[in-house]
Order: sequence, then structure tokens, then C-alpha cells
Amino acid sequence: MILPEFYTDHLIQTALQEDINYIDVATDLMLDPNQIATAHMLAKNDGVLCGLEVALRVFTLLSSSFTFTVHKQDGDQLQKGDIIATVTGPVTLLLKGERTALNLIQHMSGIATATHELVTLVQGTRATIADTRKTLPGMRALQKYAVTCGGGKNHRFNLSDCAMLKDNHIDAAGGITAAVTALRQKLGHTVKIEVETRTLAEVAEAAEVGADIIMLDNMDNQTMTQAVAIVGGRALTEASGGITHQTIAAIAKTGVDIISVGAITHSVKAFDISLKIQK
Amino acid sequence: MILPEFYTDHLIQTALQEDINYIDVATDLMLDPNQIATAHMLAKNDGVLCGLEVALRVFTLLSSSFTFTVHKQDGDQLQKGDIIATVTGPVTLLLKGERTALNLIQHMSGIATATHELVTLVQGTRATIADTRKTLPGMRALQKYAVTCGGGKNHRFNLSDCAMLKDNHIDAAGGITAAVTALRQKLGHTVKIEVETRTLAEVAEAAEVGADIIMLDNMDNQTMTQAVAIVGGRALTEASGGITHQTIAAIAKTGVDIISVGAITHSVKAFDISLKIQK
Amino acid sequence: MILPEFYTDHLIQTALQEDINYIDVATDLMLDPNQIATAHMLAKNDGVLCGLEVALRVFTLLSSSFTFTVHKQDGDQLQKGDIIATVTGPVTLLLKGERTALNLIQHMSGIATATHELVTLVQGTRATIADTRKTLPGMRALQKYAVTCGGGKNHRFNLSDCAMLKDNHIDAAGGITAAVTALRQKLGHTVKIEVETRTLAEVAEAAEVGADIIMLDNMDNQTMTQAVAIVGGRALTEASGGITHQTIAAIAKTGVDIISVGAITHSVKAFDISLKIQK
Amino acid sequence: MILPEFYTDHLIQTALQEDINYIDVATDLMLDPNQIATAHMLAKNDGVLCGLEVALRVFTLLSSSFTFTVHKQDGDQLQKGDIIATVTGPVTLLLKGERTALNLIQHMSGIATATHELVTLVQGTRATIADTRKTLPGMRALQKYAVTCGGGKNHRFNLSDCAMLKDNHIDAAGGITAAVTALRQKLGHTVKIEVETRTLAEVAEAAEVGADIIMLDNMDNQTMTQAVAIVGGRALTEASGGITHQTIAAIAKTGVDIISVGAITHSVKAFDISLKIQK
Amino acid sequence: MILPEFYTDHLIQTALQEDINYIDVATDLMLDPNQIATAHMLAKNDGVLCGLEVALRVFTLLSSSFTFTVHKQDGDQLQKGDIIATVTGPVTLLLKGERTALNLIQHMSGIATATHELVTLVQGTRATIADTRKTLPGMRALQKYAVTCGGGKNHRFNLSDCAMLKDNHIDAAGGITAAVTALRQKLGHTVKIEVETRTLAEVAEAAEVGADIIMLDNMDNQTMTQAVAIVGGRALTEASGGITHQTIAAIAKTGVDIISVGAITHSVKAFDISLKIQK
Amino acid sequence: MILPEFYTDHLIQTALQEDINYIDVATDLMLDPNQIATAHMLAKNDGVLCGLEVALRVFTLLSSSFTFTVHKQDGDQLQKGDIIATVTGPVTLLLKGERTALNLIQHMSGIATATHELVTLVQGTRATIADTRKTLPGMRALQKYAVTCGGGKNHRFNLSDCAMLKDNHIDAAGGITAAVTALRQKLGHTVKIEVETRTLAEVAEAAEVGADIIMLDNMDNQTMTQAVAIVGGRALTEASGGITHQTIAAIAKTGVDIISVGAITHSVKAFDISLKIQK
Repeated sequence: MILPEFYTDHLIQTALQEDINYIDVATDLMLDPNQIATAHMLAKNDGVLCGLEVALRVFTLLSSSFTFTVHKQDGDQLQKGDIIATVTGPVTLLLKGERTALNLIQHMSGIATATHELVTLVQGTRATIADTRKTLPGMRALQKYAVTCGGGKNHRFNLSDCAMLKDNHIDAAGGITAAVTALRQKLGHTVKIEVETRTLAEVAEAAEVGADIIMLDNMDNQTMTQAVAIVGGRALTEASGGITHQTIAAIAKTGVDIISVGAITHSVKAFDISLKIQK
Repeated sequence: MILPEFYTDHLIQTALQEDINYIDVATDLMLDPNQIATAHMLAKNDGVLCGLEVALRVFTLLSSSFTFTVHKQDGDQLQKGDIIATVTGPVTLLLKGERTALNLIQHMSGIATATHELVTLVQGTRATIADTRKTLPGMRALQKYAVTCGGGKNHRFNLSDCAMLKDNHIDAAGGITAAVTALRQKLGHTVKIEVETRTLAEVAEAAEVGADIIMLDNMDNQTMTQAVAIVGGRALTEASGGITHQTIAAIAKTGVDIISVGAITHSVKAFDISLKIQK
Repeated sequence: MILPEFYTDHLIQTALQEDINYIDVATDLMLDPNQIATAHMLAKNDGVLCGLEVALRVFTLLSSSFTFTVHKQDGDQLQKGDIIATVTGPVTLLLKGERTALNLIQHMSGIATATHELVTLVQGTRATIADTRKTLPGMRALQKYAVTCGGGKNHRFNLSDCAMLKDNHIDAAGGITAAVTALRQKLGHTVKIEVETRTLAEVAEAAEVGADIIMLDNMDNQTMTQAVAIVGGRALTEASGGITHQTIAAIAKTGVDIISVGAITHSVKAFDISLKIQK
Repeated sequence: MILPEFYTDHLIQTALQEDINYIDVATDLMLDPNQIATAHMLAKNDGVLCGLEVALRVFTLLSSSFTFTVHKQDGDQLQKGDIIATVTGPVTLLLKGERTALNLIQHMSGIATATHELVTLVQGTRATIADTRKTLPGMRALQKYAVTCGGGKNHRFNLSDCAMLKDNHIDAAGGITAAVTALRQKLGHTVKIEVETRTLAEVAEAAEVGADIIMLDNMDNQTMTQAVAIVGGRALTEASGGITHQTIAAIAKTGVDIISVGAITHSVKAFDISLKIQK
Repeated sequence: MILPEFYTDHLIQTALQEDINYIDVATDLMLDPNQIATAHMLAKNDGVLCGLEVALRVFTLLSSSFTFTVHKQDGDQLQKGDIIATVTGPVTLLLKGERTALNLIQHMSGIATATHELVTLVQGTRATIADTRKTLPGMRALQKYAVTCGGGKNHRFNLSDCAMLKDNHIDAAGGITAAVTALRQKLGHTVKIEVETRTLAEVAEAAEVGADIIMLDNMDNQTMTQAVAIVGGRALTEASGGITHQTIAAIAKTGVDIISVGAITHSVKAFDISLKIQK
Repeated sequence: MILPEFYTDHLIQTALQEDINYIDVATDLMLDPNQIATAHMLAKNDGVLCGLEVALRVFTLLSSSFTFTVHKQDGDQLQKGDIIATVTGPVTLLLKGERTALNLIQHMSGIATATHELVTLVQGTRATIADTRKTLPGMRALQKYAVTCGGGKNHRFNLSDCAMLKDNHIDAAGGITAAVTALRQKLGHTVKIEVETRTLAEVAEAAEVGADIIMLDNMDNQTMTQAVAIVGGRALTEASGGITHQTIAAIAKTGVDIISVGAITHSVKAFDISLKIQK
């Protein structure tokens, strides 16, 4: 699994503890713990799969005796009715893990599917779709991984690995040129500087002083087209703000390098996947 | 705060650790840690507020020196432009906490707002809107609390506090009557038994054997109306499956007591709230 | 194991860390880590077994190389001298895990044994023995599980899964009827309401307003008999307070449904079990 | 507090999380979170107090707004009816913390009271009462502290801070002399060596080779008297095994230095303390 | 504090738990917990201070009643005999926290002092001193922060925030050009690519394909001088391997932008600071 | 492994989480997760090995599929060029674990090597080399274990397992005799008392009152020789303060039993070990 197990294990155990604070009062009191069952994990819709390994790990953490047959992989296109994987193990633990496993894979596949839709809409342009820091607590790595499964790319992971100069930083330094210059003196050499801009004058100043990335914040498409021309390849350009399914294709045609979209992680529609125990 | 602080603190610290694994390379290197600023938390849309205390707690965990003026409370209706609260504290920490605070309050207010829309649609019927276990890892208490802020009610918290008899349990016991009877012998006296039913015969059997709650699983409205009549008040009835904004009003008119909706927690649209630092 | 391993593992590791904060200064400095030994786990008294899987898990967490032969199961009657299980593994780890394993199984078997004694005393009546929230920090699930191994049943797990209306709640609402009515409006439909009563008038009011469970708090047996008659099956009745080995049989004959006893978890007498390494 | 807060806080939070996995469904839905109340913590029996600071810490962790008036301290003798402390704070949090606070203080005072009874029984002899490693998971420091509040003294905290040579170590080394000699070569100079003995010959050998402490394991009183004479002050002597209220005075008269008793921590009878909210 | 308190608190508590697994058997049994004392934190040598806030936080975590007078700040030059800070609080807690506080501040000041020595040696050149990932478990943020206090700059924090292409990656891709090109397609736009090179041909290829940083791995100074010329400002150049106090000045004169040194974090000499309790 | 896995696992996971907060952006995006490679762990210098099992555990925690061939053990003498172990597993995980594994084994072998050098310098005297509490947060057990691999012995692990009477304790009690006497009354019988002394009068008083260990704090060698004579075997003597490679042999010749050295844990020089992936 590309995500380290020690990372996902902690999240899964948190979820299981929320869902079982003592015993499962139906399953543990009614079913034979030695009974083995097989279940199919099924796509109930068309979309992009993400989170399969994490979902199966839920069962492994409940018992090392589970076995799996895997038919699809993270990043694969799913069609309604596809069997994603087959899970075999104690029926009591299948029922205990089911909800936690589905909650994870449905959320992650929802992100991958939504990302893929946006990626498709900008195909043929130079623009790539990137995520943001608008994620849910404890879920950032899973959500960002899901974006890549949908064909998107990751923006900075956190406040430590890319310096984003906003209003407050720029005002405190006395302008974009002063801010970038001062920061470059202190910043580690592996960290890029991105500057938020709102006018073409700011874009020009940021490009001139050597910003690595220039964010075009809530600009209209005409202004963004001009901004891209002004930058002239000296920095990467990133469109941000007001991105929707309706507007994204036109934005991509302005020539920006990156379009960052908060909604793919902050407003996720779960992708419907079910677990059917075979009789 | 109704949610215990030791609970929310852990979640907030997890979120902050994701967002700052060393320092904030823009803010910590550029701004004066002694500079104090004031910010307004603003509603960017109409909806229902939820998560204010959790969001403000983010700042308190970063520094006990933050002060707050609170204008709205969880459960309040918001109109676009409303100032929800005013936050005053070190500008470096305002910027470090901003994203984490907004991620939480936007998610929780999104749930409250969506729940409130459904509650409004069933007004005038006996039906209440309930959540499910389709929640995100580590977020269940926050999500369920948000449902109540939107006027919904909580279904069981987890597998331990209500016994839901599904296919597998019923088949293993040899039918609904046998299953409920056997479980009642073992179950603690504080725990209710809910039975999933798919036919009117099952509904009748569950009501007869004394199930506390009868779930009407994916039934059409005509069948549900009959089911409610068969039950005749001997148990609570719960509609589940295929609930949408389009169908919910008609479902409520069947006379069911509860309509449970997974989407209010598994497919959350973030409610837009911003934090504007005053100059 | 009915208790999830991720739950018990954490408790066991806490116990091991308390018991070994560096090395075992006798064993690690004196014995060959490659020497394998076999030990018998022996009952030193008559009673009911509980905690075997948890105790053996201690050794598994110290090394996956341990093997076990299990002769008894949780809930089994033990007679002095019975071999409960045989444990084979590195002698150094046998000695390191011994105390932690015995501390757990002795405590849990002590609870099961004491519960079983009370269950025997009320045999032939309708009363069941239930536990309370009078448990030890971090041990609630283990202690409640031990109660069921002794033939008892579980009262509510915590403050979240059953609403117990006490003086303060009733006074604030203005009486039992008002309190139950108000709470029912807000409470999730899966949660029962229990009302504490001290007089027959309160019992009658609670039954009338539809309380699910009525606690008869420190009533004498004659009053309890009357209370049971007044309730007339409309709610479950629970005797609480002043329960001893001497009084419990007579209390059970009042016709109450449940007798809850704090002592089975708050005043546990360890059941003597030893681990004998074979030479 | 003599026990570090970071240590007790973790235990208290574990207990609170067990007791509230979402909200208190009676209190949070019925009572005004702004209502302040005062409660008396009362002794319901005669005994020795222990755990007051830990119990009050429960409330502080729920809200820093709680205030306390303290009338008794850990180690004080209590008489039935004594007001131990007065607690003032939000009534909702008083009710949420009550059970956890009482579970802790009742357990710890139970240990202190039982220890004090044994200490009284051996008064006038040279013997001191010591605890063992027979403690409950996560509770060792609290239990050992309670023993000292009752007038007892602490045996080793764990396997790392005192070397106890048992059968297995002695056999592996080829006898007591060989074992003590070999271990002394490797052991840190701050760690004492205790040797378990079953015969007077073993006692003599252990004393001769310079053991720091000699455990007299399950010896009759006559043999112990002889053992004490043989040792002649060259080592401390410790009686262990089969200690009861009936036998302890006579054992103390054999002249042993320490009598270690597992029951004071493994078979604790909760000391009855209640919290009465004032109207 | 620039390092978040929730981060340092966890580390400090781990250290305190190692150092106190029950009570301080000298201090807690001998000294009055109400006695207040004042202590001076003193430099025993010349160097650069780092870790003062972390060290003082140790005492605050033991009791909120501690007060501090701070005479020096992180990054300040210290001379032997300087009073760094004055700490006032309960003497029992001063003694309990002393070792943990000193262990932290001595280690961090050791790093700052060693870094400053190297920074001084390269003064007048364009080279900056950078750290590496050769840090101690759980200490990375503290160690990297200490490097900045000594005037150094931070290399990448971890494997996630800068892509370092080594032999294995380059071989798998079929050469530097192929590797950089392929990686650029997948990598988020905020992440830089650094390429390890061993020959001037590799340097030329890396510069040509647009590597952001080129590591000159164990090259002699003459080769490095040529490498810097070949790169010609198209990328940053980083000298790595075999850096000592003796060699660093000459290396800096080759014109490299960065000299990364593992020893400043993996081979730390504690800087001597003491805490003297005033009588 | 002599150190419990549950202990080292936590430390390793902390280190891995620091080093990978999302993915390895070079390795995970460039290399095939199914490719298997073999690497040699090589000594780059002469010294004493320590930490091999901990280092290999890093890889096992990343994947249970790793296999190892072990050529050296902890405590073995290493010569430059020695192959310590061979590691086979997925190349992506080899690269992800490499830095963490090396950071641990290099630090621990550094301690073992430095300790061994001091042990060699005092050979032929009665003195043993002991560590102190001057360790790094979270690393104490590993560091103290490393000292034993180098031939040293462990001083007390923490404040709980040996009572060290310093100035403050002695002054509060009114002198050494009063302090030792008072403490002996309260202290558990398994705990030794060490007294810090600065004059021969103090040494004589401590020996007379029965201190177990007498620390000779920063005395010159002539005074220490006299102190050893005064003690005359009634207590262990420990030299402390100002110990260097230059002075240690002469100190050992004074006849002291123990020489405690902070530098072996607080000023560690990493021992160079590399991991070479075979092509």
C-alpha cells in the first residue's frame, strides 16, 4: 500500500472504536464466531475506485484470518455492478468491519470520481487539477491520495512544505518584492514560494522577483489570460476561486498551469459501494 | 461545549499536526509573533451554523491568549454576510489555525444546513429525520451533533447501543420471531431491538414479537403506508433507502416515525464560512 | 475473541509498560532468551473462568512464537486444580508476561465468579442480575464482559446509550411527566428512558408517561412488590441499592425484572489462578 | 499532587471516554449548561481517604471553572458522614464527572483503608506492610500510592527496579550462590537483589552470598522465626504467601521486616463515598 | 513559541514519564510540596542558546504556578556564567523537571552552537549550511529548529516534501533526463526535484533537464568548482559528504549554494547549562 | 529482542511518521512497489555494534515480507567493511526505511563504541563505567541498553527507582544523618539510598548512617582515594563530574566502585553504518 500501514491502521482503529465501544450487540450475541462467510464488494455506480487496500485492511485488523481476491485496483474505472473484491472470513467480523470499510472506500472513491470528472473537462489544455488544504481532520493523506487516483495532482501537503505569501505577509514586508526577497533569505532551499495576486501589476511584480508559483486569485478569464502572458513561463500560474463544472473548461483555456479546487475534498459525494454477503 | 473538550481537542490536534509538521514557512519566517490582529468569521451563504465552539477551540489550543466575541450559536440560522464571531489574538496563530478551524466549521455547518432542509420538507408530518452510521473516521460525534443542530435526531451511535437484526442474524436464528426472542434473553435491558423488514409479512411478524423499531427497507410508499397500519403503534417505524429531496415529503406522508438518511453525513457539502483578518 | 483485539491490546501494552520500563533485571540478565518452556495455567479454587483469551494475548503480544493448548473457555465452571490452558514459549517472555496475564484473568474471573453466585441466588425468579457504571478506569468493557460470563446481563454501557432521569433532571423539568415528555422529543428513537423513583406515586407517574424502565431506588421489599404491581408490565422494573448476598433472594421475589449490583465490579475479589512453569 | 498530572490526566480521560462516547443523553438534553450547582463529597463509612486530588481533577478536566473547598486530605481518617470536599461548577458537568470521580476515589480509599487495617494489626512489631505487583492494568501508580496513604510501604514498582531471583533463575545458574554472584556482575549498582527461599538452607545460603532481601515463601511461623535468626540482620526478610487478617499478627511476631500482601491491591473493596448535589 | 505547544508537550511528557514512573522517591518523600524556590539557569560555556521555551515548558507542564524571568532568547550568544533565565516554583517540581529541561536545552543549544561554528567558517562565501534527515526519533522538528537558531537553514523535512532522485530512481527510469521528466509529470507543482550527481556529465544533464537542485555527492573541490560553473545558476548546487571543520571553508569557496552537514544533528555535543537552586 | 517490541515499535513509528507525512515523493512515484532488492548493512568504521534488532524492526514494521540474514549481534566488535546484516524486501520500502533504521543503529552503536572505549581505559581496576539520566526524550531505554552493549552498567533508570539525596534534601532534613534516617522510614525496602557528598566529613557521615551508595561529587583524585578508605566497603563509592578520556584511568585507580559519565549518552557521536542496495 502506498500509504504506510502504521498511518492507516491508526485511522481505522479510531473508526472501529467509534463503531464498537463494547461488543456488537446483535452480531456477537446471535452469530457463531466460527462461521465463515464470503462477501462481494460491488460498485453500485460508474466511477473511479480508491481506497480498496484501506478498506480491506479494516478486515485484516479485525482478524489475520481474512483472505481477499482483488479484481480492481485503486485508480481503475468502475462500472455499476463490477465486483471490486471478494472477502472471506468470520461472518461476525465481516459484519463488524463492513460499515467502517465502506465508509472509507466510498469517501475515497467519491473524491477520485469527482476529480476524474474535472480532469476530463480540462483535457487538451496544459492545466492540471490540484487539491487544497480544505480537507477533513485526520483524513488529509487519504484525501490527497484519492485526488491522485482520480488523475489530479497534489498541492502543498501543509503549511510547512510550501510558502504561500498572502496579504498579511506581503503587507508586513512592504510589498511583494520585499516579501519574496526577505523570505528567500530565510527559507530552506527545497521550499518553493507561491504568491497570491489579485491584479496584473501584482502578477508582474511576483514574476519579476522570482516567485516559483503565482496564484491568480478569483480573476476573470480575460485577466488570467493576460496574467499568463505576463508571466511568460517565468513561474507556474495557478487559478484559484470560483471553480465549478461549468466554468473549469474555460478557465483551463486561459493557459494556466494549475487549477486548484477545494470542493473535491471539502464537499465529497460518497461513491456507492456495497458489501453483499453470499448465502 | 456539549461535546467534551478532551474529545474535540484530540481531533483538533490531529488536524493541526497534519497541517504543520514543522513550522509555517511563510508566517513564522515573515510575521512578528507579538503582533495582535482581529478577524471576523463570516457566513458566505444562508444556512444553519454548527461547530462554532470547536472552531474557536482551535485557536485556544494554539494560545490561551485568544479572545472571542460570539454573535451566533450552534443551531442558529445564518444569512449571507452575518458575522458569526470575532477572534482576536496573535496574527501568526490566527493564520496557523485558520484552515483547521474553517475545515471543521464548514463541514459541521454543511451537515446542519442539509439536515435542516430535509426537516423543513417533512414539516407537518409525524416523521423525524435521523442520521446513520455512514460517517467519517474520527468524526462521528461531531457529525451526529451537527445533525441535531439542523433539527434532526440521532440514530444509534454504534454497534453496541442498539441491536439491528439484519438478514444474517434472522436467517441464523430461523426467522424474525426466533431471532428477537433469542436476543431478548441475552441483551441488556436498556438496549432496543430494531428489525430490518422487506415485506409486510415480516413487518407483521416483527410487530407481533415485540420489536422496538421496525425498519422498512427500500419499500415503496404504498407498502410503507400499509406497514405503518399493520404496526399500529406497537413499534416505531423507520423508512430507509432511496431517500432524496424529491421523495422525502411523500415518504413522510406514509406515517412513518423516522426517516433515516445516510447522505447528510456521508455526502456533505461544506457550508462556506470565511475568516477575514481586519487591517 | 468477542472483545476486539485493538481494544485489549492497548490495555495489555499499558500493563506491560507499567511492569517493564526497561528490562526485567533478573530474567533478562540471567536466562537464555532462546530457552523454551511450558507452563500450566491452573485454577487454585472453584469458580467461573473469564479472561482466558485476554491473558493468552499477553504472551502473543510479547512474541508471536507462543503456542497454546486451551482446555477451558470463558464462562466455564472451574474446579480447584483444573488446568485451564498450557502455554509454550521463550521462558524469558513467560516470566515477563506472567504477572500481567494473571492480574487480568484473576480480576475477570473474580467478577464472573461473584456474578454467578448472585445469579444462582435468584434462580427461579424472573429477576436478572445487571452490572452498573461502577467500574475501573479503562476496564469497563472487560468488566462488563466478565459479568456476562458469570450469567449476568449488562446495564447501560455509558451516559450516551440510555437516558437515566434522576432528581436533577426531574426537578429541572418540573416533574416526571414533564421530564419524560420533554426528553422524548429530543432523544434519538433508539435510546430508552429510565426513571429513578423513590415513592409509589413516582412509580405510577413514570409508568403512565411511558418510561421504558423504572428504577426502584432503595425501596423496601414490600414497597417494591407494590411497585411491580402498579407498573403492571408497562415498563421494566429495576431494584437498586443495598443489594447483598443476604438480601438478594428476597428482593428477587418481589417480581422485579432486574437487580443491579455495583459490587460485582467495584469490589472484586481476585480469583486465584497460577502459572506453573514445568521443569 | 504527588502523582504527576500528566499521568493521572491520561487515566481520567480514558475513564471519561468510556463513560461518554457522545453526549450524556439525559443531562445534555435536559439541563441548562449555564446552571451552577454545589455538591458535597461525603464519607458513607469509616476509613482512610485516598484519591481526593485525582477525583477533583476529573472535574477540572471537564471545566477549568470548577472550584473546590477541601476539608480532608489523602491519608486522613474519615468518619461516616464527614464532608470530604465541596465542589462547585456547572451542574451538567458535575453529573458527567460524578461517576468517574467516585469510581477513582472509592477504589483508592478502599485500598488505603484495607492497608491501614493490616498496619494496625502489626503495630508494635518491626514488620511493615508492603504491596506487590498484583495490580490492575494502568492503575499501578494509583494503587501503590493508596497503599502508602494507608500506612503501608511499596515493594518494587516493576520488573526493572529490583531483581527477584526465583526458581527458574536459580536453577539456570546452578544454585543461589551462583545466581547472586553472576547477577551482581551484570546488574546496575543501584538495584537490589531479592532471593525467594523455601527452606532454611536456602535462607542461609542467600544471607551468606549477600542477598539484599530474602523472601520467606509460604513458610510456617516457626520456620520464619528461625529464618530471621539465621539471617541475623545481614539482609531484610520478607514474609509472603497466605497472609490474612487472622494470621498477620502472628507472622509479624516472627520478626520479619516486611510482610507483602497481594490482596490489598488485587481484591479491593470500594470504600463508599457519595456526591450529593445541594438544592 | 515557534514550535507548536501540542507538539513539544507530547515530547516533554514522554521524557517526564521515562524519568518518573511513579514518584520521585527522594524528593516526594523528603520535601514540602508547598515550599517555593528560585533557580538560575546558567551557561557553563560560550555558545548559542536554543530550546529555552521548550525547557521552561517542562516546568509549566508540571505546574501552572511556575513563573519565569527570561534574560536570553533562542539564537542569542551565550557567555560562560550568563544567567539565561530564572525559574520560580515548588521546589519538589523544580527537582522533578530539572533533568528533563536540561536534557532538552543542552541538546538543542549543542546543535545551535555547532551550526554557528560552521556558519562562521563559511562567512563571506555564498554558501549556507543546511541540515539533513540524520536526526533522532521524535526530535526532528526540535533539531531542525536548533539548526536555524545557529544560523543554518533547513534541508527538506522529510521524504514527502522534496523529491531526491538517487541511483535507484535514475537507473529505474533509464537516466537523469528520463527520471526528471517522468517525475515532473506526476509530482505536485509545489515540490522541487533534487538530483544526486557524481560526475560532471551528470551535473550537466541534471541542469539541462531542469532539476531544481543538484547535489554534488562527495566530489573534490576542483570538480565542484567546475560543476558550479557548468550549472551556471540554472539550479541550486549542494555539496554533500565528507564535510568537516577542516574542509568546509575550502568547499564553500567552490561557489556551491548549500553545504549540507549530517553531523550537526547526528553527532551532537551537549552544551553545558545548569540549574542552580538559590538558597 | 531484550527491549520489548511494543516499546521500540512506538519509537520507530514516531520516527517513520516524521519522515513520511504523506508519501515518498521520489520513490512512490518512480519505483515499482513489487520490485524486490537486497541491501547490505555495512560498518564504515571500527567499533561496537548496537541496535541491529531495532534497525531491522523498522523494515518489518513497513512490511512483514522483509527477510534478514544477520552476521553480527549487538555487542559484537565491528571492523570497517564488515557486513552486519543483509536485508531483502521491496525496494520502495527499503528506501523508505533506510534513514530511520540507520539513524537508530548509528546512534546506538555510537554509544556502545564510546562506552567501550572508557571501559577499556579502566580495565584492571575495580571501577565500572555507568550511565546517567542525561539522555534524550523517548530514547532512555535504548541509550541505556547501548551502554550495556559497550560493557558499561546502568545507573538508576529514573527518579523512582533509586533515592539520590542532594543538597536540597539534606538541608531540608538537617544533615545527612537526619536525611537518610528519615527517608529509610518511608522508602520501600527495595530502593537504595545514594548520598551526594563534597567533603570527607560528609563521606564519613554517609557511610556511618548506612547509605547504600556514596557519590563523590567533583572531588580530586587524592580526596577520592581517602574517601574510598574512609568508606571501607560499607557502601559503594561513585565518582562523578569532570570525567574525560584523559582523566578516567587515574580516577579508576582511586579505588572507586563506579564512574558515572553523562557524555556517553548526552554527547553521542554517531557510528557510521551504511545500507548499500545491491544492483
